[in-house]
Amino acid sequence: MPAARHFTSDNCAGVHPEVLRAIAEANGGHAPSYGADRWTARATELVRAHLGAEAEVLFVFGGTGANVVALSTLLRPWESVICPEGAHIAVDECGAPERFLGCKLVAVPTTDGKLRPTDLETALQDVGDEHRVQPRVVSISQSTELGTVYTPGELRTLADAAHAHGLLVHLDGARLANAAASLGVPLRALTSDAGIDALSFGGTKNGLLGAEAVVLFGGRAWPEAKYLRKQATQLPSKMRFLSAQFIALLEDGLWQRSASRANAMARRLGDGLHGHPLVRITRPVESNAVFAIVPPEYIPALQDRYGFLVWNERTSEVRWMCAWDTTEADVEGLLAAVREIVK
Amino acid sequence: MPAARHFTSDNCAGVHPEVLRAIAEANGGHAPSYGADRWTARATELVRAHLGAEAEVLFVFGGTGANVVALSTLLRPWESVICPEGAHIAVDECGAPERFLGCKLVAVPTTDGKLRPTDLETALQDVGDEHRVQPRVVSISQSTELGTVYTPGELRTLADAAHAHGLLVHLDGARLANAAASLGVPLRALTSDAGIDALSFGGTKNGLLGAEAVVLFGGRAWPEAKYLRKQATQLPSKMRFLSAQFIALLEDGLWQRSASRANAMARRLGDGLHGHPLVRITRPVESNAVFAIVPPEYIPALQDRYGFLVWNERTSEVRWMCAWDTTEADVEGLLAAVREIVK
Amino acid sequence: MPAARHFTSDNCAGVHPEVLRAIAEANGGHAPSYGADRWTARATELVRAHLGAEAEVLFVFGGTGANVVALSTLLRPWESVICPEGAHIAVDECGAPERFLGCKLVAVPTTDGKLRPTDLETALQDVGDEHRVQPRVVSISQSTELGTVYTPGELRTLADAAHAHGLLVHLDGARLANAAASLGVPLRALTSDAGIDALSFGGTKNGLLGAEAVVLFGGRAWPEAKYLRKQATQLPSKMRFLSAQFIALLEDGLWQRSASRANAMARRLGDGLHGHPLVRITRPVESNAVFAIVPPEYIPALQDRYGFLVWNERTSEVRWMCAWDTTEADVEGLLAAVREIVK
Amino acid sequence: MPAARHFTSDNCAGVHPEVLRAIAEANGGHAPSYGADRWTARATELVRAHLGAEAEVLFVFGGTGANVVALSTLLRPWESVICPEGAHIAVDECGAPERFLGCKLVAVPTTDGKLRPTDLETALQDVGDEHRVQPRVVSISQSTELGTVYTPGELRTLADAAHAHGLLVHLDGARLANAAASLGVPLRALTSDAGIDALSFGGTKNGLLGAEAVVLFGGRAWPEAKYLRKQATQLPSKMRFLSAQFIALLEDGLWQRSASRANAMARRLGDGLHGHPLVRITRPVESNAVFAIVPPEYIPALQDRYGFLVWNERTSEVRWMCAWDTTEADVEGLLAAVREIVK
Repeated sequence: MPAARHFTSDNCAGVHPEVLRAIAEANGGHAPSYGADRWTARATELVRAHLGAEAEVLFVFGGTGANVVALSTLLRPWESVICPEGAHIAVDECGAPERFLGCKLVAVPTTDGKLRPTDLETALQDVGDEHRVQPRVVSISQSTELGTVYTPGELRTLADAAHAHGLLVHLDGARLANAAASLGVPLRALTSDAGIDALSFGGTKNGLLGAEAVVLFGGRAWPEAKYLRKQATQLPSKMRFLSAQFIALLEDGLWQRSASRANAMARRLGDGLHGHPLVRITRPVESNAVFAIVPPEYIPALQDRYGFLVWNERTSEVRWMCAWDTTEADVEGLLAAVREIVK
Repeated sequence: MPAARHFTSDNCAGVHPEVLRAIAEANGGHAPSYGADRWTARATELVRAHLGAEAEVLFVFGGTGANVVALSTLLRPWESVICPEGAHIAVDECGAPERFLGCKLVAVPTTDGKLRPTDLETALQDVGDEHRVQPRVVSISQSTELGTVYTPGELRTLADAAHAHGLLVHLDGARLANAAASLGVPLRALTSDAGIDALSFGGTKNGLLGAEAVVLFGGRAWPEAKYLRKQATQLPSKMRFLSAQFIALLEDGLWQRSASRANAMARRLGDGLHGHPLVRITRPVESNAVFAIVPPEYIPALQDRYGFLVWNERTSEVRWMCAWDTTEADVEGLLAAVREIVK
Repeated sequence: MPAARHFTSDNCAGVHPEVLRAIAEANGGHAPSYGADRWTARATELVRAHLGAEAEVLFVFGGTGANVVALSTLLRPWESVICPEGAHIAVDECGAPERFLGCKLVAVPTTDGKLRPTDLETALQDVGDEHRVQPRVVSISQSTELGTVYTPGELRTLADAAHAHGLLVHLDGARLANAAASLGVPLRALTSDAGIDALSFGGTKNGLLGAEAVVLFGGRAWPEAKYLRKQATQLPSKMRFLSAQFIALLEDGLWQRSASRANAMARRLGDGLHGHPLVRITRPVESNAVFAIVPPEYIPALQDRYGFLVWNERTSEVRWMCAWDTTEADVEGLLAAVREIVK
Repeated sequence: MPAARHFTSDNCAGVHPEVLRAIAEANGGHAPSYGADRWTARATELVRAHLGAEAEVLFVFGGTGANVVALSTLLRPWESVICPEGAHIAVDECGAPERFLGCKLVAVPTTDGKLRPTDLETALQDVGDEHRVQPRVVSISQSTELGTVYTPGELRTLADAAHAHGLLVHLDGARLANAAASLGVPLRALTSDAGIDALSFGGTKNGLLGAEAVVLFGGRAWPEAKYLRKQATQLPSKMRFLSAQFIALLEDGLWQRSASRANAMARRLGDGLHGHPLVRITRPVESNAVFAIVPPEYIPALQDRYGFLVWNERTSEVRWMCAWDTTEADVEGLLAAVREIVK
């Protein structure tokens, strides 16, 4: 029997009851399709209240779709995206960005999943050379693929460096809520206030049924965005049911409560593993992920109890991801399993 | 105040209560993401039971996404798609097929929205000519964009002609249920039994919250399909909530009940307009759409009462679309408005 | 034995001796590659002298390449190209524009191969609708695919109408020289003076070995163009040998002499066929092409003598194309063959 | 005054006189366009005689075009290309492969520009994972971007490893002749005999005016190739003038003589630099390139005398490339300049 509880990904979690209720409440009668409804108007207002008053907001189906749409508003095909080596857009989207954008992704090695201004230098050497793709976008994830978190100052420094060279900054915020909750800052502090130009604002991993938003900053209109969303197959027809999810997420602090709980569970797990003689935590536990090296011979038995991912086969590093619905019992159960099996 | 009830499109309707209940029931605890869950297994079984035992089934977010994924499994970029002039893929998807596939769509004029074997002839003249795109796929809609319906025999004849020339047949079945309900035949009669190679199987317009399926026939494996779905940004992470919708649709005849009701409402509307001195029905009412010419001066006042689309500005042809939740009161209300206003 | 002389296309002709001599003269020693050589500087100067002082000029390998590069400077993927139904980009480039641009081509039926302002109206109805591709470029050919020629006034009127709606105009000038020679006007009169935004300036069909130019107007810099040329695989490494061809073409009126001769031969052929009881000229002979209906039973015997194309199988319309090296003897020979065979 | 003689690239050289003569000889009268001429038939025969009797041969304009066409015959868009980090396709083609193919290029670090079977392992871990691009093609250059040369045995070993995993091998042979001449083996030994599946066969850098060939092996028909060539804008209309160049190259050993001379000049240059106290050769001189570290303060003065490239700004590594027309006087002149300036 497969594991019933999962640390595999935060998308193994279900839908938060408040979100499901919001969907049901949006189900009265008819509504204009494709976003011309009152739920979408309200959700847009809320996104702007949290992220920036002048933001352009487009709700979309999924995270890869959000990334592709966001990037496509910033790029022409001869331009490139500088991103960390393990970026979701670079390794986990089956080449969707290359296919849809026609652009090259330039992956830069990092130790902690974060880019810094010096990481832009190599690509910038090619500016003006017609044989080379032209750097245009810096794409980073917050929280990162390694569970680390950029501070507002780190984001600002990177964005300033990018802008100084004519580059734009895309933030893959599939777990933006976890980063903001971890830092105790509003969402704005990590996006418009930090100089981000385009954001993939994640909802699904934070308790929604399935909804993400592309948020475009800069105080300018983005007339191209709506065509790119449609062309990328990311325009939902019954939009109100996605917008209603965002209303539930943003209206009353649910985003913060859910992300904080996931983060707290990860911290609890990290703390509980501390000092284990055979399991070594490999990354700072700054959001809702715990990375650790576990001797490979113990992994199958552990996976019989709880679903989780082997992040790196070669080094036997695993990832445990906590979600809005991870319970203390889940964490204690996993810790007990580790104590029982890994010895 | 905008109209509260809509004949604009069947995607102005809400979610059928049985579907919402199925979503809620799927919301217990954790489940593997990306389709490795038991709801997806069950929904796949049900699609196969209705459409063909050996079909490959991939659930996706939306209709344009379904079309793009389905077509991309059939085509290489120098090949073309023959479709009717008003096809959704040709005019209502903002060029998504051209962008994602790199292919040319060859639109053929029709009188009733249907293709016939002779419509393939012009494109077939280019076979082997390296200066010309090579015809490869015939894409049709069932029911058509004009609300007409292909009989199983018509489909079979077209598919046989296509296959005889090495072409494959894609069916855009955003409203397949309406066609099957109208004809009183099982879904299989219009798809695998009729020689269709790839199907976009619509759910959203038939009462789902948002879910469609790509169904691939031919009794062969389609190993490329899963990569194409992911690359097209159409792989849902919390898949169980899409699959649960299809379970509700297919397990107990809901697809048929909902489509039949929508069709019946369209028939009632068509019948009610019969003989009106100023309103002329322009297309056979064979599914859930009613097309009619209404003198332009009356349209704004009518649209204040009920949402609907002007299909053709030039000829002043309008479209009234009925949905699973269109009521007798809606139809009678619209008929009353027509009698009151158009005179 | 296949025919030794051809009216099939003007690209069956060889290289003009003056052009071959210019290539040989450019073959002394080393030169910087990719266009940083003195021949390219000189050829650019000459193109500007003929076409407009501020033009951006990019030499490329071939005609399809020129069209793709020129169009790609004007378009984003959700935008569309309005062109006549038989346009080379629409039917004779194996879908290269769709594949490289990701754009839809909207082909408009015409009687004479020419677009007029009213032909833009249908596409313009979709402006602002996110479900529809957005019209952006009007692409026309001069001379047209049917051998007809736009007057400077016709071009100006079309360009003004396009610009008034925010559209740009691309001119496929594979046979621009023939049009200018036919009208007795300078090349500028049909391009920058007429409001053209981007030009594919043909050389190969007018006696070059193989060279075309993309010429961009509007008095602005086109920094993106060089990247698009390279990305479209159209940046020649030994550029000097293409530039040298254009020097030969433009420095001393060769473009005009060669085009005039081809046009004169077409006129002679048209005149010679006048009054033939079975052969009917179908298009005004305004450049170097003659279109005629020839009863199908005579065509194979004629093609044994001289190569030519059946333009339309259904109507038995053929095309005879004259080149810079078509001789009076060729024309008289073909006329004699027609008199002998078609009776 | 810029340098008159160049070690910048072998494409700074001119056209070999035998090649220019062949072009002139092909210039008699009319010929069918697009390759249906006798020169193309003969050139195809010669390519097959040198490379493999059953090869599919397609002449194209340029090297980036050859790579794009060759790769596009092997790949679907969700598949990836494994190549060395400095591969021409990865860094010097302005993203043309990503744009035309939609594919990801996976660049692997190397010390000597060569891939080995172990370099495939990381990419192969992703086989079957729908979130990851699927490895399909191994693309290598012969000679490599660093002037090194694979032995026939090394190629065979790599190709066997690739094939064992279902991968295909593309060879970027822009300088294939230099590699074959260096090894003293026929062209076949490095291509069909070594298990290569698709080849970009370079001509331009070996003394042609401008012509390359895509050569496809495997003993099967490649019906898709001609459409891909046209769609990639790489189908020359006056093909005979490209084919004639290949006839000159292959009919009488010119390929070997020209490549051998370029190689010999590089060897002479490498030998002459041996033991210089400040200039350090960095790569084995195995073909027509010499790489060396030159202290940066001397480079501008050297470049005033002879054109050459700074390969790596950071390490101050330069590249001197010899061509078919590099003379002993060129090499001695450069050596004298180094002795005079770098001290």
